[in-house]
Amino acid sequence: MNRKIRIGIAGYGNLGRGVESAIAQNPDMALAGVFTRRDPVSLRTLGAQVHRLDAIDAFVADIDVLVLCGGSKSDLPEQGPALAARFNTVDSFDTHARIPEYFDVVDRAARAGEHTAVIAVGWDPGLFSLARVYGESVLADGATYTFWGRGLSQGHSDAIRRVPGVRAGVQYTVPVSQAIERVRSGERPALSTRDKHTRECHVVLEDGADAAAVERAIVTMPDYFADYDTTVRFIDAATLQREHSAMPHGGFVLRTGRTGADTSQVFEFALKLDSNPEFTASVLVAYARAAWRLAQRREFGARTVFDIAPALLSPKSPAELRAQLL
Amino acid sequence: MNRKIRIGIAGYGNLGRGVESAIAQNPDMALAGVFTRRDPVSLRTLGAQVHRLDAIDAFVADIDVLVLCGGSKSDLPEQGPALAARFNTVDSFDTHARIPEYFDVVDRAARAGEHTAVIAVGWDPGLFSLARVYGESVLADGATYTFWGRGLSQGHSDAIRRVPGVRAGVQYTVPVSQAIERVRSGERPALSTRDKHTRECHVVLEDGADAAAVERAIVTMPDYFADYDTTVRFIDAATLQREHSAMPHGGFVLRTGRTGADTSQVFEFALKLDSNPEFTASVLVAYARAAWRLAQRREFGARTVFDIAPALLSPKSPAELRAQLL
Repeated sequence: MNRKIRIGIAGYGNLGRGVESAIAQNPDMALAGVFTRRDPVSLRTLGAQVHRLDAIDAFVADIDVLVLCGGSKSDLPEQGPALAARFNTVDSFDTHARIPEYFDVVDRAARAGEHTAVIAVGWDPGLFSLARVYGESVLADGATYTFWGRGLSQGHSDAIRRVPGVRAGVQYTVPVSQAIERVRSGERPALSTRDKHTRECHVVLEDGADAAAVERAIVTMPDYFADYDTTVRFIDAATLQREHSAMPHGGFVLRTGRTGADTSQVFEFALKLDSNPEFTASVLVAYARAAWRLAQRREFGARTVFDIAPALLSPKSPAELRAQLL
Repeated sequence: MNRKIRIGIAGYGNLGRGVESAIAQNPDMALAGVFTRRDPVSLRTLGAQVHRLDAIDAFVADIDVLVLCGGSKSDLPEQGPALAARFNTVDSFDTHARIPEYFDVVDRAARAGEHTAVIAVGWDPGLFSLARVYGESVLADGATYTFWGRGLSQGHSDAIRRVPGVRAGVQYTVPVSQAIERVRSGERPALSTRDKHTRECHVVLEDGADAAAVERAIVTMPDYFADYDTTVRFIDAATLQREHSAMPHGGFVLRTGRTGADTSQVFEFALKLDSNPEFTASVLVAYARAAWRLAQRREFGARTVFDIAPALLSPKSPAELRAQLL
C-alpha cells in the first residue's frame, strides 16, 4: 500500500467533526490537522491538532487534500477559490443555483495552482445528483422525482427562529408518502410543491409570546412555508433539547420510465440518515481519496461527482473491485 | 450537436431487440444495423437492416460502437475479444466469477486494435455493482446486502425445464421482505441463503407425469433449489402463456453503516423492472455513448462501469449537467 493520504480539515463545526470521525474509519488516510478561524485552544476535537486557518500556508507540504467544512453562504464563495489555488480540495457547496459560477471560479484557481478541487460533494448535491444522472441516462423516456426527508432542515429551522416571539425551534421536511407511492407505481404524476412535502415545526416560545400570531407568521411565510401544508407544535425547551437535538435527514430519488413496448421501469435511490453532517462528511472523505488520485495524475481543475469514475472513491484496486463487487 | 453515434447490434434475441428500441429513444444515436448468425431474412426486426455476423468486417467504417447481445456462456467468451479487436464494444457479460479473466482477454484485444470495450454492463453486474461500490466507499464501517426479485430467473427456469416430466415452466426469485426490513432498520444481520430469498416455480407437466416426483426433483436440486424454500405450483399451458410470458425482475442493494458516535446510516438502491431485457438494453445503450466518447479520447482497452465517470453516460454536456442535475 502507498503511504496514507493526509487530510486537512478547514472549519470545525458539525461537518468538520464528522470528517475527523470519517478519517478514523479509513485506514488509508491520516488526519493532518484542523484549521479554524476561531481561537485554536477553544476547540475540543476528537484528538486532532488545531491550527489557525490564516497560518495554513505553512502546512502546504503536510496536506494532500483539504476538506472545506465551511458554509455555502459566505465561507465557501471566498475560501473555495482561495484554498484551491494552494491545496487539493473537496467541499460541500450546496447552493444549487450558484453551482455553475462557483465551479468556474474554483476551476480557474485550481488550474492556476495545479490542484484538483471537487466541489458540491455530499448527498444533495452529491449522491442524489448521481442518481438523477444515472436514472436519466439509462431511462431516456422518463421523469425524475426527488423527495427529501423526513429530515431536519437547517435553513427552515433558521427561518422559524427569526420569527418574533420564537425562542427556539426546529423544522422537519416530510415527504408525502402517497406521492412517493404514485411515482413508484410508474404513473408519472404532475406533483405540485404542496403535493410532495409537508413541513413540521416544533417551536419554543419566548415568555409571553402570542402563540397564534407566531403560528400565523410561520405558516404564511413566503418561500419557506406558504406553499406547503405546515403544522406548528409548541413545546418546552427541555423537550426540544431531548427530542430534537439530532440531525436526521434523507430522502428519495426516483426515475420512472418506459422502454420498448411501453414497459414500465422504476429506478429508486434512498437514504435514511440518522446524522446528516456525519454522512455528508463520509461522502466528502471518499471524494478526498478521488481528488488525491486525480491530482497525482495531474488532472487539475474543478470536478463534480459527475466527472469522477466510481472506482476512484474506493480504497480497493480496480482488479479487486472487478473480482469482489462487479 | 455532433453527428449521431452509429450503433451496431450483434445478436438479435430479447436483448438485441431491446437495444433496437432503446436507440430509438436516444436522439443522438442511429442504428447502423443488426448482425446475426441466423439467416438474415428470418429475422423480424422493428425496422433495422439485418446482415450476416460473419460479414461484419465490411461495416467497420459504419459502426461507432457495437453492442454485443449474445449470451455469457458461449457467445461472449469468443465474440467479446474477437469483436473488441475490430470495434468499440459494449456487452452484458454476467458470469460474475469469470469477469476478471474475461476483462483481461478483452482488454488485450481492445488495446491491440485501439478500441474501447465496456464489459459487464446492465443492472447486475452494472447498476447494482455501482451501488455496492458507492455504498462501500462512503460508509467504510458497514455491510452490503443484495436482494434480487421479485423476478424471473432464466437460469432457474432452464433448470426446471430439464426435469423429466416437465413440459414448460418458469421460476421467480422472491426476496424475503422481513429480511429486507431487518437490513433497512440498520441492524446488520447475518443472513443465510434461505433467509434472503424464496423460489417460486410455475410448472406445466407432460401428459402422465408424476407431479409429486417432479416437485421432489425440483425442490431437492442442488445449487439451484436445495438451499432455498421452494414452492412448486402446477398450471396448464394456457395459464403459463397468459400469466408468465413477461420477464420482470429487479431487486435491492442496501449498504448500512455506522459513522461518528455509532450513528446509523442506510443507503438503498432499488429497481422494479417490468422487462429485464429492455432495461438491460437501455443501460447498454447509455454505456455505448460513454464507450464512443472514451474511444474518441483514445482511452483504449477494457473498462467496467467502475471506470466510467457518470457524465459520460448522458447526452447532456458537463455544464448542462451541473446547471440542471447537480
